[in-house]
Amino acid sequence: MHSVGICGSDVHYWQHGRIGDFVVKKPMVLGHEAAGTVVKVGSLVKHLKPGDRVAIEPGAPRETDEFCKIGRYNLSPSLFFCATPPDDGNLCRFYKHNANFCYKLPDNVTFEEGALVEPLSVGIHACRRARITLGSKVFVCGAGPIGLVNLLVAKAMGAAQVVVTDLSASRLSKAKEAGADFVLQISKESPQEIANKVESLLGCKPGVTIECTGAETAIQAGIYATCSGGTLVLVGLGSEMTNVPLVHAAIREVDIKGVFRYCNTWPVAISMLESKSVNVKSLVTHRFPLEKALEAFETSKKGLGMKVMIKCDPNDQNP
Amino acid sequence: MHSVGICGSDVHYWQHGRIGDFVVKKPMVLGHEAAGTVVKVGSLVKHLKPGDRVAIEPGAPRETDEFCKIGRYNLSPSLFFCATPPDDGNLCRFYKHNANFCYKLPDNVTFEEGALVEPLSVGIHACRRARITLGSKVFVCGAGPIGLVNLLVAKAMGAAQVVVTDLSASRLSKAKEAGADFVLQISKESPQEIANKVESLLGCKPGVTIECTGAETAIQAGIYATCSGGTLVLVGLGSEMTNVPLVHAAIREVDIKGVFRYCNTWPVAISMLESKSVNVKSLVTHRFPLEKALEAFETSKKGLGMKVMIKCDPNDQNP
Amino acid sequence: MHSVGICGSDVHYWQHGRIGDFVVKKPMVLGHEAAGTVVKVGSLVKHLKPGDRVAIEPGAPRETDEFCKIGRYNLSPSLFFCATPPDDGNLCRFYKHNANFCYKLPDNVTFEEGALVEPLSVGIHACRRARITLGSKVFVCGAGPIGLVNLLVAKAMGAAQVVVTDLSASRLSKAKEAGADFVLQISKESPQEIANKVESLLGCKPGVTIECTGAETAIQAGIYATCSGGTLVLVGLGSEMTNVPLVHAAIREVDIKGVFRYCNTWPVAISMLESKSVNVKSLVTHRFPLEKALEAFETSKKGLGMKVMIKCDPNDQNP
Amino acid sequence: MHSVGICGSDVHYWQHGRIGDFVVKKPMVLGHEAAGTVVKVGSLVKHLKPGDRVAIEPGAPRETDEFCKIGRYNLSPSLFFCATPPDDGNLCRFYKHNANFCYKLPDNVTFEEGALVEPLSVGIHACRRARITLGSKVFVCGAGPIGLVNLLVAKAMGAAQVVVTDLSASRLSKAKEAGADFVLQISKESPQEIANKVESLLGCKPGVTIECTGAETAIQAGIYATCSGGTLVLVGLGSEMTNVPLVHAAIREVDIKGVFRYCNTWPVAISMLESKSVNVKSLVTHRFPLEKALEAFETSKKGLGMKVMIKCDPNDQNP
Repeated sequence: MHSVGICGSDVHYWQHGRIGDFVVKKPMVLGHEAAGTVVKVGSLVKHLKPGDRVAIEPGAPRETDEFCKIGRYNLSPSLFFCATPPDDGNLCRFYKHNANFCYKLPDNVTFEEGALVEPLSVGIHACRRARITLGSKVFVCGAGPIGLVNLLVAKAMGAAQVVVTDLSASRLSKAKEAGADFVLQISKESPQEIANKVESLLGCKPGVTIECTGAETAIQAGIYATCSGGTLVLVGLGSEMTNVPLVHAAIREVDIKGVFRYCNTWPVAISMLESKSVNVKSLVTHRFPLEKALEAFETSKKGLGMKVMIKCDPNDQNP
Repeated sequence: MHSVGICGSDVHYWQHGRIGDFVVKKPMVLGHEAAGTVVKVGSLVKHLKPGDRVAIEPGAPRETDEFCKIGRYNLSPSLFFCATPPDDGNLCRFYKHNANFCYKLPDNVTFEEGALVEPLSVGIHACRRARITLGSKVFVCGAGPIGLVNLLVAKAMGAAQVVVTDLSASRLSKAKEAGADFVLQISKESPQEIANKVESLLGCKPGVTIECTGAETAIQAGIYATCSGGTLVLVGLGSEMTNVPLVHAAIREVDIKGVFRYCNTWPVAISMLESKSVNVKSLVTHRFPLEKALEAFETSKKGLGMKVMIKCDPNDQNP
Repeated sequence: MHSVGICGSDVHYWQHGRIGDFVVKKPMVLGHEAAGTVVKVGSLVKHLKPGDRVAIEPGAPRETDEFCKIGRYNLSPSLFFCATPPDDGNLCRFYKHNANFCYKLPDNVTFEEGALVEPLSVGIHACRRARITLGSKVFVCGAGPIGLVNLLVAKAMGAAQVVVTDLSASRLSKAKEAGADFVLQISKESPQEIANKVESLLGCKPGVTIECTGAETAIQAGIYATCSGGTLVLVGLGSEMTNVPLVHAAIREVDIKGVFRYCNTWPVAISMLESKSVNVKSLVTHRFPLEKALEAFETSKKGLGMKVMIKCDPNDQNP
Repeated sequence: MHSVGICGSDVHYWQHGRIGDFVVKKPMVLGHEAAGTVVKVGSLVKHLKPGDRVAIEPGAPRETDEFCKIGRYNLSPSLFFCATPPDDGNLCRFYKHNANFCYKLPDNVTFEEGALVEPLSVGIHACRRARITLGSKVFVCGAGPIGLVNLLVAKAMGAAQVVVTDLSASRLSKAKEAGADFVLQISKESPQEIANKVESLLGCKPGVTIECTGAETAIQAGIYATCSGGTLVLVGLGSEMTNVPLVHAAIREVDIKGVFRYCNTWPVAISMLESKSVNVKSLVTHRFPLEKALEAFETSKKGLGMKVMIKCDPNDQNP
């Protein structure tokens, strides 16, 4: 392994030992945003050889069930997934993974970019589910890492204008740097007021809203904001029950769709990185060698910077 | 006009003078489930001539706005719609309508079947939005007229198995007659229990749930019941705010979609009726001449039978 | 194994030793339309157990490549496929197959119906690619076994009217029995004349044409016949180069799509058979015990009847 | 009117008096790539007022037929279309058009950009039909104006890599400037050889081929080049009959789709121009005042430069 990013879920398992129904019951290796170098391949593997630099898709089907057969393998109940208990992750020196879910990196894509394919994939999957396309007007709710990758992907897919909202001015300035056409700082507005402000900025209601906070008021704002016939994608997760103006969405045919991780995103993300159509390098704000993993997790836990990267190769700590 | 069915919304406007933001401010002709005979056509009309028997699509665009251009004219804010204030309906002897939204009836389709294209269209639009297709397993929640047309359309689209739930045993027996593979009478089950029972009947979770009641618990049951990657279509309308396990839908990628009336359904419905692939005749349980319209509305208000039909042609009171 | 149908490709390999680039270089077991009983399962198999009656999908991916990941595993270049050299088929007593591609048969579905899921799948895949749906008007070109399964599936998907053409009156009478709304015997008509006749029968140009003959004139007729914005699906295969009025298709946005076998059809086909929404039993016209396989192949080669079934279980020769 | 571009079809009608079945039988105003300023609006028009700068979509439905209702109004047989006989175009000083097909230009979009929405729309419609999306690998055949707009739109839609082929080195250098990742000059290669070279450049077969020449060999190359499961879009038009390896496309499920003009592209194109996500200004190489229209047509006929623009407003000859 070369570079492994720390994700919020890694921190959560470390601190709380569970996320929903997934409970850590025995020691588990963390890490699922990873890239490294192939050391050895099985006898049937043809597309990779030792020495190849690869990005690792952490979810790999264990069996070809009906979800896999239709191309939605992320929904397969028996999916192997790095660092989701009981499956070990890849924050370590050496790691074995299904070769079909290891993707060769082009020479002009760094290991860290390879590791960042994982968060980028969250954005690709959400923007695809939202059917963002040329000329889309998009409302991204939340300017954290997930909001930012959705912004980047939406623009790369041809979105004409993206407005990003957040409580934090500093996060919004990062969104502005990353290409947001408009940013809007929220304080005490009602969901309906937020929707109105978004409409004012775009000159029309957005066709797509991507909700990345999980807050009930934000989901409500997303429903009010989205134009008739549009789509609200729920990326952020909140409490189990949510009170929403469902009728308001229903009679305007605003579709509400969630996302579970991603599927079929690695080749696309790597192509984007290769052709420089998206820039994720600036997301990495901290780096630690594997030996200082605890310090890395403390940094991530404190919410400092955007993305903390752990460098697993003692001989190469470069990006 | 020949035959005009009475819809729940007609009764509601009559009794309450409003539905949501639509308020009756001056006398308004009711009726939007209608078929009749062409008396006269405009000079540019080529597809119809006097004497043609036609079914009338009550919603006709007033202008070619962006919703119309993409084929979702039902969402057009300036749509003309029969018997939605301030637009008059067609429960009368003579009526003028956009010729492109009058559809010639084949000889083997009756006027009443022509009028029933309207409720059938609600089912067609919902089942299309649900992407029902060959082999679909479907859960229809509610066995009233709307539940029944959804059942009929789902089967006509190739659904393999449909389970219908309702509080009323008599409604369920009608659903059974109409082709339901399974019926399930609900009493005090929790939403999760209903979902479990539906899964037991089908042998798997349904890929599609069509919710026709608007009840909060039913919507919750629909979310729990639908399989990962499936679709919940909301046809029934309830209170403005709804408390739902949105996270449960989101992380399993169960899409939640509403419907607003219908679009592009008349030709399809007429083809179905012509080829006898769906039978709606038995939905009509009462008939009244136009002179006894008040009695017809009283009957409909009392919830007697399924569909009350008003016969507007004094010379022909046949189906 | 219990019942294995003989397909035209089986006869072709037997007689000619090759189909296109697929060359039989060493002895090969034929047969890929098959159903049987599970004798033994691997330790990880949970959905099947010895004694289960199963239908076998002959194509099973060898690795999860990019085609498999997006749900189009039929296009995977490394796919295992029964009786396509060098892969052995399942016309034998005992046979081992990927458990995820063995599908349990309901009690009310016979082994022979299970074997017929294979030809039925050709129709399901073609009709799906054609986007046949409620109310579709369909032109099926050719009334052989493949034309018939397309007819059956099109009707099951809700097609309002299907017209079937063929050179043979006897084949057309079978199509009529199987549910064709119209049949049209072709003799010396030009492609344009055929198109005109199809339009006359349907009252409009078909939205979908399914070409099952591979004849150049039939493909041309399919292009002329299909309505603007419609789809022509090529199921029949003809000579390598074809002379077609491509501009006529292009400027009317008639999409031309081919099919390669099928994917994701077994569960759907079994559901259809279980719910009796399609009847394939009458396709079987001849049966032979495995010991008389040569006689069975001779019968199939002579083109007698529709489907020849070989019975592999010496203790149970029932359908 | 302010700026009207000359299209190849304008030159063709001028020189030959017909294109296919469209014959000029009486004097006809040319021009359909146009932008101007609103002078007067009808009493029901709300979205425009005198003084608004607008781009004009030349095709506007005359009636809401079944093609219009499903959002494919470009296929409507009764469509009005500027400068397609017998409908007059808008290369003149004053012109009346359906207000719903006049689109207000943002302040930062010039009249000439507004006129160029028309050729841009050809690319948008073709790239949409091709389902180009994030990470697509695309082969554009032909580097004329239509090839270039397809290149621009494909990149704006997120295509990772585009290879453009042409016979002319100078055209290819323009394609390179416009953002082509690879260009390939064709001389005497066979269709199969071209396909192989395209695959070598991209590192894989393209998922999409957009054929803009209409040459039979180019269409053949497009079929050989496109990867299994991909799409070949035919934009260029050649002779009536075409000899193609249809089986090669069919068994690899390469869909062949044509385009007829465009629909639903103006708002998207204007959004793209407003957000500067596509640059078309450099396409204009010549300008002539309306009085010198003949000289403008001669220039266009000689194939000099890319796009000749006629300036209709005597008081404002700016871009």
